[in-house]
Amino acid sequence: MPLFKAEYLLRITEKIFKAAGATDREAKRVAEHLVKSNLAGHDSHGIMVIPEYIEMIEKGLIRPGAKMEIVRETLTTALVEGNWGFGQVIAEKAMEIAIEKAKKAGVSAIGVRHVYHIGRLGHYSSMAAERDMIGAVICNTGPIMAPYGGRSRILGSNPISVALPASRMIFLMDFATSVVAGNKILLAHNRGEKIPLGWMLNKNGEPTDNPAEILKGGVLLPFGRHKGYALALLIDILGGALTGHGCTSSAEFKSGNGTFMAVINIRNFLPVQEFKKKVDLLFEAVKGSPTVKGAEIFIPGEPEWRAEEKRRKEGIFVSEETWKRIKKIAQKLGVNILV
Amino acid sequence: MPLFKAEYLLRITEKIFKAAGATDREAKRVAEHLVKSNLAGHDSHGIMVIPEYIEMIEKGLIRPGAKMEIVRETLTTALVEGNWGFGQVIAEKAMEIAIEKAKKAGVSAIGVRHVYHIGRLGHYSSMAAERDMIGAVICNTGPIMAPYGGRSRILGSNPISVALPASRMIFLMDFATSVVAGNKILLAHNRGEKIPLGWMLNKNGEPTDNPAEILKGGVLLPFGRHKGYALALLIDILGGALTGHGCTSSAEFKSGNGTFMAVINIRNFLPVQEFKKKVDLLFEAVKGSPTVKGAEIFIPGEPEWRAEEKRRKEGIFVSEETWKRIKKIAQKLGVNILV
Repeated sequence: MPLFKAEYLLRITEKIFKAAGATDREAKRVAEHLVKSNLAGHDSHGIMVIPEYIEMIEKGLIRPGAKMEIVRETLTTALVEGNWGFGQVIAEKAMEIAIEKAKKAGVSAIGVRHVYHIGRLGHYSSMAAERDMIGAVICNTGPIMAPYGGRSRILGSNPISVALPASRMIFLMDFATSVVAGNKILLAHNRGEKIPLGWMLNKNGEPTDNPAEILKGGVLLPFGRHKGYALALLIDILGGALTGHGCTSSAEFKSGNGTFMAVINIRNFLPVQEFKKKVDLLFEAVKGSPTVKGAEIFIPGEPEWRAEEKRRKEGIFVSEETWKRIKKIAQKLGVNILV
Repeated sequence: MPLFKAEYLLRITEKIFKAAGATDREAKRVAEHLVKSNLAGHDSHGIMVIPEYIEMIEKGLIRPGAKMEIVRETLTTALVEGNWGFGQVIAEKAMEIAIEKAKKAGVSAIGVRHVYHIGRLGHYSSMAAERDMIGAVICNTGPIMAPYGGRSRILGSNPISVALPASRMIFLMDFATSVVAGNKILLAHNRGEKIPLGWMLNKNGEPTDNPAEILKGGVLLPFGRHKGYALALLIDILGGALTGHGCTSSAEFKSGNGTFMAVINIRNFLPVQEFKKKVDLLFEAVKGSPTVKGAEIFIPGEPEWRAEEKRRKEGIFVSEETWKRIKKIAQKLGVNILV
């Protein structure tokens, strides 16, 4: 079971993307995004996606060197055409624009279309929180989830992330609107485990505890019944319809993530230090409150900081399967990973 | 079982509030809000709250005639001091401000503090949708819900509503971040029914199917486990900390709803007709997709339009208990309800 230092994974990821045609800047940004996802404990958004991304470059679904364009812009809003560049690179630039606009105008809203995967949404919302603002990011995804009451792949697992600052931490909410992400089901499948009823339906619309059904036309279910469904639909509209990326079920939708971001400048409401103090007190009240037997109360984002602390120290575990696939890609691209 | 026309309920509600000291405008706005909630099928936010509101006027927690003030303002943002006026009146004005700002600036964000209940959030988000914009409203509430993993009343059932326009309907998402609203549990209690496990914990932090526990220190649970909890916490921060209303668990929080609203002007991204067409197609795809056995797929807001259509025709059912309490209040205030 390979266990690697973040710095090593960063270096080889960068080299692989450069060898596949990415510019220096793209390779660096994507590598940092992926390894940071591993550090945060979200391996599904980490370096395991390298083989998929390389394949997408070969298929032309990711276009290294693509220049993003701002097709509409006001003081508070922008619509970004990604021209199918690396999602991570375009989305990061879009969040920079959102932060700049919110700094000047108080609030901002940015739509991003025609990008491949943007990866872990928490990366972008946290950028705003690190600048003492409130950042929100949502995006639609490929079809994998049923509407509430339905049984076919009409929606994506459309995630949402919001981040904001406190004194000693960042509140970071970041979740899919499906009960669980699709790769959790794949993981159970790889391990030969069953899944709880309620996570998904098989292709006939029946509840199943067999994760293999996800490979045979099964469908994810929204979290929290009609509530998660309503959120997923809203995210499809903001990420897909408002931006021109296309709603997941539409002919307009090709692949990737139709993305919508918003930033709020806290200073327009109260001094940031005052805000942070109030949030600190709330977190203390929540974490200090009695728990149910055997449970612990976390602030959203806390599991991620803990994972990062641990993994920076102990290294990042990469599964044999993932490591084998990455080595194969590296070899094919002529990248020496033994440095 | 009394069944009333909306017009009649409007008339008597207005008279009762006027008799209790509300201005003509306040009485009209609050009456319209409450009866509209009944029409939409949300009786818990309808005229059943009249006795509570009258009590709050007597206690000084609602101050008829209070003038709202804008304490901070930019082109895109405003912080509204409600001075404990009727929540419905202040929140409606705040949404008007948000819509005006979004019309000019593209996006807007408004905080509202020191108001009593603002009622059904969908009322305000729909105001934006009716003007071809996207409207979002969230607020914190009194302590009734546990954090995920916790078992005490640290959070409110903090609701969220987002509305946006399509060609023939308004998308209207409007839900509490608890599994169910507290009054659904009271309703089950009044009917002598049990509730499903997972809705609440008793005061010892144990799952219970006995709705009476809500009256003995029991606590609601967030919907969708850590996801609903994260949303509730976020809403407490935006509605409570950002506005100065106070987070539910803080000494700053007195009562009512710390409220946050945002509006996005669709025109800044694409022509409204184009947006609506895309949303229409999405709704057709969702509603036309196969269902699980015996289920129907609804667009968020659809149950409310159906209820309104039915109730405008057939009348609004008011429970004997509620009607008795309203008659008593009317009598006390010297209001003749037989007209």
